[in-house]
Amino acid sequence: MPTSADVARLAGVSRATVSYVLNNATAVRISEPTRQRVQEAADELGYVPHAAARSLRAGHSRMVLMPTPTMPMGALYSHVFNELQWALRRLDYTVVQFGSLGMSGDEAARAWAELRPVAVLAPGDGTLTPRGVHVLKRSGAKAVVTLGPQRVEGAHALLMDQRAVGRCAGAHLLDRGRTRIGVVVPREPGYETFSAPRLAGLRAATETRADARVVPLELGYDEPSAAELVARWRQLGLDSVFAYNDEYAMLLLRALQDAGVDVPGETAVMGADDLLLGRLLRPRLSTVRMELPSGQRLAELVDRAVRDPAGAPEVHPLLGTEAVPREST
Amino acid sequence: MPTSADVARLAGVSRATVSYVLNNATAVRISEPTRQRVQEAADELGYVPHAAARSLRAGHSRMVLMPTPTMPMGALYSHVFNELQWALRRLDYTVVQFGSLGMSGDEAARAWAELRPVAVLAPGDGTLTPRGVHVLKRSGAKAVVTLGPQRVEGAHALLMDQRAVGRCAGAHLLDRGRTRIGVVVPREPGYETFSAPRLAGLRAATETRADARVVPLELGYDEPSAAELVARWRQLGLDSVFAYNDEYAMLLLRALQDAGVDVPGETAVMGADDLLLGRLLRPRLSTVRMELPSGQRLAELVDRAVRDPAGAPEVHPLLGTEAVPREST
Repeated sequence: MPTSADVARLAGVSRATVSYVLNNATAVRISEPTRQRVQEAADELGYVPHAAARSLRAGHSRMVLMPTPTMPMGALYSHVFNELQWALRRLDYTVVQFGSLGMSGDEAARAWAELRPVAVLAPGDGTLTPRGVHVLKRSGAKAVVTLGPQRVEGAHALLMDQRAVGRCAGAHLLDRGRTRIGVVVPREPGYETFSAPRLAGLRAATETRADARVVPLELGYDEPSAAELVARWRQLGLDSVFAYNDEYAMLLLRALQDAGVDVPGETAVMGADDLLLGRLLRPRLSTVRMELPSGQRLAELVDRAVRDPAGAPEVHPLLGTEAVPREST
Repeated sequence: MPTSADVARLAGVSRATVSYVLNNATAVRISEPTRQRVQEAADELGYVPHAAARSLRAGHSRMVLMPTPTMPMGALYSHVFNELQWALRRLDYTVVQFGSLGMSGDEAARAWAELRPVAVLAPGDGTLTPRGVHVLKRSGAKAVVTLGPQRVEGAHALLMDQRAVGRCAGAHLLDRGRTRIGVVVPREPGYETFSAPRLAGLRAATETRADARVVPLELGYDEPSAAELVARWRQLGLDSVFAYNDEYAMLLLRALQDAGVDVPGETAVMGADDLLLGRLLRPRLSTVRMELPSGQRLAELVDRAVRDPAGAPEVHPLLGTEAVPREST
């Protein structure tokens, strides 16, 4: 395996110069021809620096760990996630993602700590515990930041408060004169940390209305489950439903129509996510549109936290919501 | 920061024993009480092993690098991806994902090589070049494996040959008596490595039929783009369309219906992915269902490649396809 000494010899420069060039050190001025000579020598020999050796020498790493989502990501989240990685890389961090599927929170924290990251962006879904935050900090993480619906003691929080989604849907349905509101709770595992706060937010929106009633409705993401729910629809006495997201809403809307329930006349149906596909149904699906700050902004928050490791945990609410009324409500 | 010597002192064992326990070394027998004492001491001190230091000592890492997808993943891919991570972890690999958005192929390979992985699962989408494979191997990767539609010289390939999807759709449409076939090519960036082979596969399916005609149709994923395409639909003289996937198919199906084109009477429409949502349209959408092997099987292929670094590159075709005829064809 080629070493940096080999590169230095071939390029006719010192090992320090090789290190400055290949590690993109900005504090040291290196002339463009020298920079090019080093890069060419490294390419010819197939030499690349060793990130772990470098961070052991430096006593700290530039690695930021991000969680691997265990569910398929929507387009919005996927976009922000990619922007964030890209922005962190421009700030000279090495971003790697690490899955924790099937691990307990403390196992996950230990596994993350083994990689000695300078910052950890953990899922704000209950995986990470205060004890896990402690383990990460003890092993050198300067910033532990959760990204998701929940906070954890000791960590910064980029908070995507899902209650806002439920509040927004509830306010819209009340505005449309609906008061007997069903709320879909997906039966599929992994949704609880999103569906519970959405339900709570919708309840909160109806709190001041004595005439309002909120009924949780379990629904699996398949046609038989939807048919089963709809078979007892008229007994439920609902005039509207917030169906968790657009996909569950489309499933339920179709099942209601197949059972002869008029939408929105008899039951208003509302989704969330503002998927293009929701616009293709008739009636067109009303929805809650969500907005997140740019990945650039999130990267700056992470970087600031790394530079101020003794700072008190900060909470940044991130999730913007807006009702998009179409024809189904 | 606590060290393994601190743990050894507190547990009253040697540093070697601490290392055996915390690194899950299976070659060495350690009694359960000792194992527990070490784990408790480590927990109390908040000590976790340093993965990079360990692999520097050992001269090799157990890190497997996987690409971070730059597009939202479908449920099928997301499921297999999670299974694969889980299965690799059971084989005692540390799996991390690494994004390469906005990097050229050789930059990406160098960035991956800096982490000194024992294996790299790279996207088989043209990002990795033969030169990149060389750089990775020179820096110690025992296996370089692509996962996706394309092969790269020098690397093993877990090949998801997208031509099979086009062939399957083409055979179904011919079977339905359709011969003038439009093929949707998404306008959105990042789809080329999937859409080009799907188109090629469909062309291949019609090759022996002198009466067949295949017409590529550019389509953006929005309603105005669909309306624009449909406005000149009858001039195109097509009797069917393979619409890349279910989402584009649903968009196009709705636009055709809005323009008064009868589906499937005048134009048959076929998607791919077998999304539940496609079943909610009327007519119900015909589609191509894809199948992938289990993550366990993929993990075993990767592990075998690591154990036999001198072995010739293997190609494993992975993608199974099946037409699912419903009402739109």
